Amino acid sequence: MRKMEEKILNEGKVLPGGILKVGSFLNQQIDTEFLKEMGKEIARLYENEEVDKILTIEASGIPVAVAAGMEMGVPVVFAKKHLTSNVDGAFYSADVHSFTRDEDYSVVVSIDFLLPGEKILLVDDFLANGQALNGLLSLVKQAGAEPAGVAVAIEKCFQGGGDEIRARGIRVEALGAIESMSDNEIVFRSEI
Amino acid sequence: MRKMEEKILNEGKVLPGGILKVGSFLNQQIDTEFLKEMGKEIARLYENEEVDKILTIEASGIPVAVAAGMEMGVPVVFAKKHLTSNVDGAFYSADVHSFTRDEDYSVVVSIDFLLPGEKILLVDDFLANGQALNGLLSLVKQAGAEPAGVAVAIEKCFQGGGDEIRARGIRVEALGAIESMSDNEIVFRSEI
Repeated sequence: MRKMEEKILNEGKVLPGGILKVGSFLNQQIDTEFLKEMGKEIARLYENEEVDKILTIEASGIPVAVAAGMEMGVPVVFAKKHLTSNVDGAFYSADVHSFTRDEDYSVVVSIDFLLPGEKILLVDDFLANGQALNGLLSLVKQAGAEPAGVAVAIEKCFQGGGDEIRARGIRVEALGAIESMSDNEIVFRSEI
Repeated sequence: MRKMEEKILNEGKVLPGGILKVGSFLNQQIDTEFLKEMGKEIARLYENEEVDKILTIEASGIPVAVAAGMEMGVPVVFAKKHLTSNVDGAFYSADVHSFTRDEDYSVVVSIDFLLPGEKILLVDDFLANGQALNGLLSLVKQAGAEPAGVAVAIEKCFQGGGDEIRARGIRVEALGAIESMSDNEIVFRSEI
């Protein structure tokens, strides 16, 4: 998505350690006009899949998921993060390691909101090493539901998580896919 | 908003301790068609205010804020919750006590995203004792911005937070305002 690449180039800030800050339009402040366009693009990419529901993870995945859900006319479910695994039997739960924060947490979702046989589109803001999305994929599997695919705003391809998920036969779409980045250059996958 | 009252009556679950569960359409699963209607109603309520920006708090305030922001054509900023006050000088920060979880946390927002003179509409899913919204109001004041008002999906009037904010001269609108509730009856403010 050309406009995502332009937003990243114009407003993103590359920090040491492979960190990309996009707080001005995606992560803390949300450009709602652009968010609508993101939702439309995700809906277009998955228009031939019979998506029943979107699953995301709090907090910054929610805006992208909501925009896509509004366009596609499907409900959005967001998994919650807990720092402990103390959740009762009424939840599906998966453990996730955050490399960014070097901590473990659980992603949980009530069994009421992921049903057997549903086709679930997974949506998040970032895809880096794929830990969070693998947690969501585990929740989908536990529920007996089926992943329709993954859609993220920004994929940091150099961290490998997206290609690992693709290698498992799951479709992964990124509105902006960054092949490499440094202080003075961002190379998108679309350019190589 | 009649439809919010119907959704609460049809899908809400009252639990002991004044807790209302609306996970099926607002808190964990989001009914995106209804969410659009919420956004339209908030936009209508504040159409005569020159709102520059919406401020909400992660996580479950985000869908409502995004829906309103899309309708109003303004950016949405979400404050983050931290369990410690360890944030550096580039953030505004306010302390909040959660009665639900009996814990203290800070709400923080980067100084880049709340600017002096801006008119800020505060949006959240629930308004109960008002602790979280008072934290957001403090952030607005610290930034030298001005509150345009408050809009929430559901106000639990019996917990008093909304009326305290109104008493300070700040407009508060709730799409569903619950005056009292028990196992077998929910009374809305619109009915009394």
